[in-house]
Amino acid sequence: MPYTAPLDQIALTLRTVARLGDLAATGAFPNFDADLVEPILEEAAKLARDVVAPVNAQGHKTGAKLGPDGVTAAPGLKNVYAAYREGGWMGLPFPEQWGGQGLPRVLSLAVMEMLQGANASFALCPMLSLGAVEALLAHGDEAQKTTYLPKLVSGEWTGTMNLTEPQAGSDVGALKTKAIPNGDGSYAITGQKIFITWGDHDVAENIVHLVLARLPDAPEGSRGVSLFLAPKFLVNADGSLGERNKVRCIGLEHKMGIHASPTCVMEYDGATGWLIGGPNKGLAAMFTMMNSARVNVGTQGVGIAEAARQAALAYARDRKQGAAPGVDSAAPIILHPDIRRMLMNMEASVQAARSICYACAAAADLAEHASDPAVRAAAKLREDLLTPMAKAWSTDKAVEVSNTAVQIHGGMGFMGETDAAQYYLDARITPIYEGTNGIQAIDLVGRKLSMGGGGAMSAMLDDIRATAREARNANHPHLVAIADRLDAAAAALGEATTWMAAAMKDKRETALGGATAYARLAGNVVGGYFLTRSAIDELKTDGPLRDRAIGLARFYAEETLSRAPGSVAGISSAAEALTDTADLILG
Amino acid sequence: MPYTAPLDQIALTLRTVARLGDLAATGAFPNFDADLVEPILEEAAKLARDVVAPVNAQGHKTGAKLGPDGVTAAPGLKNVYAAYREGGWMGLPFPEQWGGQGLPRVLSLAVMEMLQGANASFALCPMLSLGAVEALLAHGDEAQKTTYLPKLVSGEWTGTMNLTEPQAGSDVGALKTKAIPNGDGSYAITGQKIFITWGDHDVAENIVHLVLARLPDAPEGSRGVSLFLAPKFLVNADGSLGERNKVRCIGLEHKMGIHASPTCVMEYDGATGWLIGGPNKGLAAMFTMMNSARVNVGTQGVGIAEAARQAALAYARDRKQGAAPGVDSAAPIILHPDIRRMLMNMEASVQAARSICYACAAAADLAEHASDPAVRAAAKLREDLLTPMAKAWSTDKAVEVSNTAVQIHGGMGFMGETDAAQYYLDARITPIYEGTNGIQAIDLVGRKLSMGGGGAMSAMLDDIRATAREARNANHPHLVAIADRLDAAAAALGEATTWMAAAMKDKRETALGGATAYARLAGNVVGGYFLTRSAIDELKTDGPLRDRAIGLARFYAEETLSRAPGSVAGISSAAEALTDTADLILG
Repeated sequence: MPYTAPLDQIALTLRTVARLGDLAATGAFPNFDADLVEPILEEAAKLARDVVAPVNAQGHKTGAKLGPDGVTAAPGLKNVYAAYREGGWMGLPFPEQWGGQGLPRVLSLAVMEMLQGANASFALCPMLSLGAVEALLAHGDEAQKTTYLPKLVSGEWTGTMNLTEPQAGSDVGALKTKAIPNGDGSYAITGQKIFITWGDHDVAENIVHLVLARLPDAPEGSRGVSLFLAPKFLVNADGSLGERNKVRCIGLEHKMGIHASPTCVMEYDGATGWLIGGPNKGLAAMFTMMNSARVNVGTQGVGIAEAARQAALAYARDRKQGAAPGVDSAAPIILHPDIRRMLMNMEASVQAARSICYACAAAADLAEHASDPAVRAAAKLREDLLTPMAKAWSTDKAVEVSNTAVQIHGGMGFMGETDAAQYYLDARITPIYEGTNGIQAIDLVGRKLSMGGGGAMSAMLDDIRATAREARNANHPHLVAIADRLDAAAAALGEATTWMAAAMKDKRETALGGATAYARLAGNVVGGYFLTRSAIDELKTDGPLRDRAIGLARFYAEETLSRAPGSVAGISSAAEALTDTADLILG
Repeated sequence: MPYTAPLDQIALTLRTVARLGDLAATGAFPNFDADLVEPILEEAAKLARDVVAPVNAQGHKTGAKLGPDGVTAAPGLKNVYAAYREGGWMGLPFPEQWGGQGLPRVLSLAVMEMLQGANASFALCPMLSLGAVEALLAHGDEAQKTTYLPKLVSGEWTGTMNLTEPQAGSDVGALKTKAIPNGDGSYAITGQKIFITWGDHDVAENIVHLVLARLPDAPEGSRGVSLFLAPKFLVNADGSLGERNKVRCIGLEHKMGIHASPTCVMEYDGATGWLIGGPNKGLAAMFTMMNSARVNVGTQGVGIAEAARQAALAYARDRKQGAAPGVDSAAPIILHPDIRRMLMNMEASVQAARSICYACAAAADLAEHASDPAVRAAAKLREDLLTPMAKAWSTDKAVEVSNTAVQIHGGMGFMGETDAAQYYLDARITPIYEGTNGIQAIDLVGRKLSMGGGGAMSAMLDDIRATAREARNANHPHLVAIADRLDAAAAALGEATTWMAAAMKDKRETALGGATAYARLAGNVVGGYFLTRSAIDELKTDGPLRDRAIGLARFYAEETLSRAPGSVAGISSAAEALTDTADLILG
């Protein structure tokens, strides 16, 4: 069954969680018109279903190929990319000055979710370009912007991030690639980079590599890292393409999944590049790309999970096995309560993850554009707090949901050629790249909890409690029950936060041992908060979407929020036990 | 790093959980001698490490091949099987009358764990033979036993289970394969079977297929299913091999993992077979094989999880990234608390799963051999209760632990050719075959809770509470804390059991919606019970194994048992919410 964008759920999330109305009220998006949202989403859904999804399975089988002239994309992807470029999708969230449409980035994220669901390998290509554009917008000089931004924003060229080296994965500061001044303002870059997504391909005429490297006199570690731009083809003064730069793909990784995304070993052999931002300022520029990439990877998790959910639902409706309540034999397996439980968990998980990701992107929009500086500051705190949750919680759910989809398919799910298997394999990279989920948890407890005097999480908890009150006052029996669960869950998250904040000061190593369990609780509670918000907002409306929102919030409250109060000791006491016992047991 | 059998942990589990001493005291194992255990385990460990494990990675890459003459096993497996056969390992748990060694089956299970950890694809071959032998021992007539058992018990021939057909997976009663009497006591079997593990190969000279099929006048559904024996080569009266039977492999599945295990489509084209057990008694015979297979698949989960744990531990000690507490830069990642948490969870999960599987097999030994009928009956209840937990909980943990191993490997873990990736892919089938884990949960709440008037679970809870008392009285601070967690967890399991037992009577559909969550809680608590048992028993001893057992029990108590009291609503209330909301949301 082909992927079909869940337009109702996406629109509901944009309305009730991202609160597009608030973004429009900033006045920062003159092109934005509420009536445009539906047609944009519908066009994107068509692209995803009719163009992008149909080549997904073939790409999984064939993969990209490396030949003497570089990488050839998997069958069909050149046409897919052309359709994406011609639709002007790349420019959606970028300034009109550079050829973009100046729309909220959360709208771009909704489009990205559809591409990810349709074909995660393909969607990585524009996803990396997005990061490159953000980095150039934030750190490029005018000449660099003028030369590269129009081509990247139009999608004529694509962008990459070149960070990782064999000895420098999570620890970017350990990288060894060198950049030597050529004396003409350019640099000669030499070194090897690994795991470079869409590092080479034939779907666009040029590739703009953003490369981390060290200047000759750079300090050690991450403070001595600079960012360079090195295009595949050098660009002449008139904007035409010049000679081939000395950077090439010398190998493709054989991976578990995302086979149609070429993961390149890149060799820089004195490649010509230009410094972006100041010397030794590479880390700041990298974080610009990474923050954009983190919510995008979270959304990749949402897209894959949504696709897996659809495949499982279709299979469960179609596959007949045994008797079920009300049917004597050959009942579709969706009638079995245990299958229904799995499907409902998938529904609730996907919608909660979608909400966290969209809320994160909407906060980024507000943080940049709100007219009131206090609103901007609060939104920035919210964006920073939600970024590690968007990345880690959503991608953990992607693995979990796609795992459940395999399970629902039974033996067929284990066959390498089913869609369910592909989603499971594609999903597995998402908790790893753009900062492992462990690193996200450390970021959450190590930076985000103390940021703004601890204000980010306390503001979040205030919002959750206010929403619980609103739910209780909504005069609807299910919402009252949900309010009870949400209140208790907020109290648990508050208690865990208090412990964590104190432990980070007094016994940092112990605290870090509880980071992942804390991050999971935080995501669980915040996810339930957003589901409750949607249910409250939809209460005013009528019809199946409303009942669906209430039903999902209710199921999630009983299934997931109900466990929150009992999970605090699994953070704090388990971290203490870890500190005491691990030396002996791990050696 | 090659797989190395965890001899200390295996021996500890046999001693403190399987309680080999109790088995010896039955007098049913005259060949059993406590001094023999260590040399047997050490020999098996050598076989696993030196012979079986070294071809595991190659088998993953190459897989089995189907040619005109049938299936050729992956490189090296013929030699591996020869070593296994020559070592006499196949006969370990079977009666001396048929060439076996008459030792407890739990000892055979410990050996099986090592084979599974070393090479899960290979270990499936003897694992299927074990099930065939059990079925013949229980249901074959004397002539059948005399003809086939000596060859199967010696390992000269292998056995298979032929159950599944495209329309008949979990619902075996839907199968269509026909068996027509030939008039000479034999039957002509015609039909197609899929997903047949090691259905054809070249590592042994003959293959004994046990096949479910329907007699001409059979009733519909599972009551009309009979079991037949159809060898690959017919056996002459003198025991020599005769002509090729009309059964052959016509296709191999392309799977996500266990590539070196040939998963065959088998075509029966009037193949000659003989009825095992009575007409239409196939289901009972099938359950003999399945019950043996379920604890074996659980143990496959333990073996793969153990191998993944070892790979992750070795990688975490070797891989250097960034600063860690006490080290400024390039610290091995094992020093990071979040990595330590993952490794400790793996340790505790593997040991708890091992304990559940071994306890299940030991109960089966006692149920068959104890001299006191009351002991036999109680042991049978325990075996029946633990079987679905051994299968489902251990295999869920196999997926979880191998998933964590991939995560610890970071980007390298996603590369298709690393050991961690192979374990992850191999593990994924284990929650599916031999009855999906959803079916195990339904078996637990639907049959096992009501069995013996509900006595199986109440006896289990009594044992758990008695162990908590023993821990509290042990006069050791950590054991007192563990006792508190175990008591609270037992109370939670008791509460959930009361709800579940009542709901299964009053509102079966709702109850079944809580089955998986209930089974997970039961496994969590029973796993903690066994870890506590080991800690108490080891208290009398001295040295690192004792401290390790206490440390593991303590970490698990805080990390996992502490969550039990908060998870009851996630069973009962979530099942109610499921019943109320799923119709609307799933359509």
